[in-house]
Amino acid sequence: MSAMKKEYKVGIVGIGTVGTELVKVLRHRKFPASEIRIIARTERDEVIAGETFHVHAASVEAFEGLKFALFAGTEGAKGASQQYGWPAVERGVVVIDNGDDYRMDPRVPLVIPEINPEALRKHQGVISNPNCSTIIALMALAPLHKVAKIRRFIASTYQSVSGTGRDALVELDQQARAYAAGGEMTGKVYPHRIAFNILPHIGGVKENGHTSEEIKMRNETRKILDAPEIAVCATCCRVPVFYSHSEVLNVEFEKPISPEQAREILAGSPGVKVMDDLSKAVYPMPVDMQGADDVAVGRIRKDETVPNGLTMFTVGDNIRKGAALNAVQIAEKMIEMGLA
Amino acid sequence: MSAMKKEYKVGIVGIGTVGTELVKVLRHRKFPASEIRIIARTERDEVIAGETFHVHAASVEAFEGLKFALFAGTEGAKGASQQYGWPAVERGVVVIDNGDDYRMDPRVPLVIPEINPEALRKHQGVISNPNCSTIIALMALAPLHKVAKIRRFIASTYQSVSGTGRDALVELDQQARAYAAGGEMTGKVYPHRIAFNILPHIGGVKENGHTSEEIKMRNETRKILDAPEIAVCATCCRVPVFYSHSEVLNVEFEKPISPEQAREILAGSPGVKVMDDLSKAVYPMPVDMQGADDVAVGRIRKDETVPNGLTMFTVGDNIRKGAALNAVQIAEKMIEMGLA
Repeated sequence: MSAMKKEYKVGIVGIGTVGTELVKVLRHRKFPASEIRIIARTERDEVIAGETFHVHAASVEAFEGLKFALFAGTEGAKGASQQYGWPAVERGVVVIDNGDDYRMDPRVPLVIPEINPEALRKHQGVISNPNCSTIIALMALAPLHKVAKIRRFIASTYQSVSGTGRDALVELDQQARAYAAGGEMTGKVYPHRIAFNILPHIGGVKENGHTSEEIKMRNETRKILDAPEIAVCATCCRVPVFYSHSEVLNVEFEKPISPEQAREILAGSPGVKVMDDLSKAVYPMPVDMQGADDVAVGRIRKDETVPNGLTMFTVGDNIRKGAALNAVQIAEKMIEMGLA
Repeated sequence: MSAMKKEYKVGIVGIGTVGTELVKVLRHRKFPASEIRIIARTERDEVIAGETFHVHAASVEAFEGLKFALFAGTEGAKGASQQYGWPAVERGVVVIDNGDDYRMDPRVPLVIPEINPEALRKHQGVISNPNCSTIIALMALAPLHKVAKIRRFIASTYQSVSGTGRDALVELDQQARAYAAGGEMTGKVYPHRIAFNILPHIGGVKENGHTSEEIKMRNETRKILDAPEIAVCATCCRVPVFYSHSEVLNVEFEKPISPEQAREILAGSPGVKVMDDLSKAVYPMPVDMQGADDVAVGRIRKDETVPNGLTMFTVGDNIRKGAALNAVQIAEKMIEMGLA
């Protein structure tokens, strides 16, 4: 009896790009799930990642008996955690929310398991998964922050369309096909064409002309690293790439840190892969990181224009480590820490 | 007789993407050319931008009688200015070189006509056209530098494949078609696939792990602005876009400058177009700037993480203002200033 591994009933709320990836990641990692219960807007049967699921219509009762509920938090499932999050917690469910509704809520830990697992100890039932761009930046930055303390960083992003959701993947695909067929590249997901174009515009307009995505990178970084003094200036751009976000990071540290040291620290950090040999054309690229668990870092070099400066290029799969994988890792970490 | 406009014999050396654009720009601007003489590797007749030209085989004699020789400086024409540049000058030709062979040569002015035309007065026969990324950054930055003095800037670029040349345009086109046909996306121009991908790699490996493109942005900026103390850190990335380079610029000024002031200054600067209304999804994009003369600037906002900081997004056609147009404008400016 004692050899029997404990199993958990897991709910997934929303079944777009992130919800589908959650199923894949749970199966791939052999998460001890006695049940995977899909909850979405309408009841139906659906094949998800090769398995037929009975999809339950969203209601407070649909969460009954679950240990974990993973809210995809994007596309059709936006707002679901506001409606069902805390009510599910009252029924004994641990809610892990990939959406942005509760990330800055002081009751809610915002967690990247490799970086700040201890924040989970204070949870009150809801845990937030950070924004994809924040996760991909911090997987590269947090290990360096531990050693040399970050004072300020600038992030310029190259974000894939999968971050917008399934409709955006279809839109880029259709525009690429229209191009090849000599047709017109039309769309409705983005305000402008995305194929063979760059849109410096992710999210709504927020303070001082920054977008919500840009503000998230600053605020979430401060909360995750528990460092409210870190200065972050981000510019977030959508690029014609299907999966994986790329980011140029220019970082100023309190203490000196060399590219060699940074490479060594990152090579020893779980979930990080150093790909850094420009002379052999080795560096991270979105097509290589699609579907990968690790976040890759390369082009690590001195930024000589500032004391203790480094610049680097980091790439991670926004749907995987940037969303679904990180959420599942939070559940695993809570089990490991005896918190669930 | 006095009403007759003076005309000039103009040579174009190399007939790839930039050479072809030079023909277009000369015609479009009604440059007073009594002859356009195309010089390339082999003698032939060729239709260029809708006109049939007799192409002259490159030799020192081929430059005889020209007033201007515009060296395309890319692809097949690389090295031509080393071989024929100064010998042409000895024959009385003014050489305007789009390549990078002479840009840092103290004998050679490096000129963006809207920014530093006075540098032309000291010319010794060869004038260099700056690198496309430098031109597109400085069209946005130089007018602000005049007012508030730049101390440092960080550039993260999103550079189109046309900067590599005609073969790269074909490569991206073929990969997009292969994608649509469900085939394999192969290539030989870039070390990796470019369609639906990002390559943080433009140029060769130079000092401290920077690429040649990144170093050019620093060195050329200092020479053009005659400000050797300006600190520049660039990361240059190739993106799956056909024409126009985009750049995120994070700038630190000596003196305070507000986004409103910056917008006003740029709106009054020749060759610059302000496109900046995020709430209406108005900002510069490569698809809009393709074929345009202006460099567009938008997303102008405070970088609150540093004293006197601004951040912005700038886009320009790398083949046009980034190369051919700027070269023709240099010739026009020299005529206007009585230097040719």
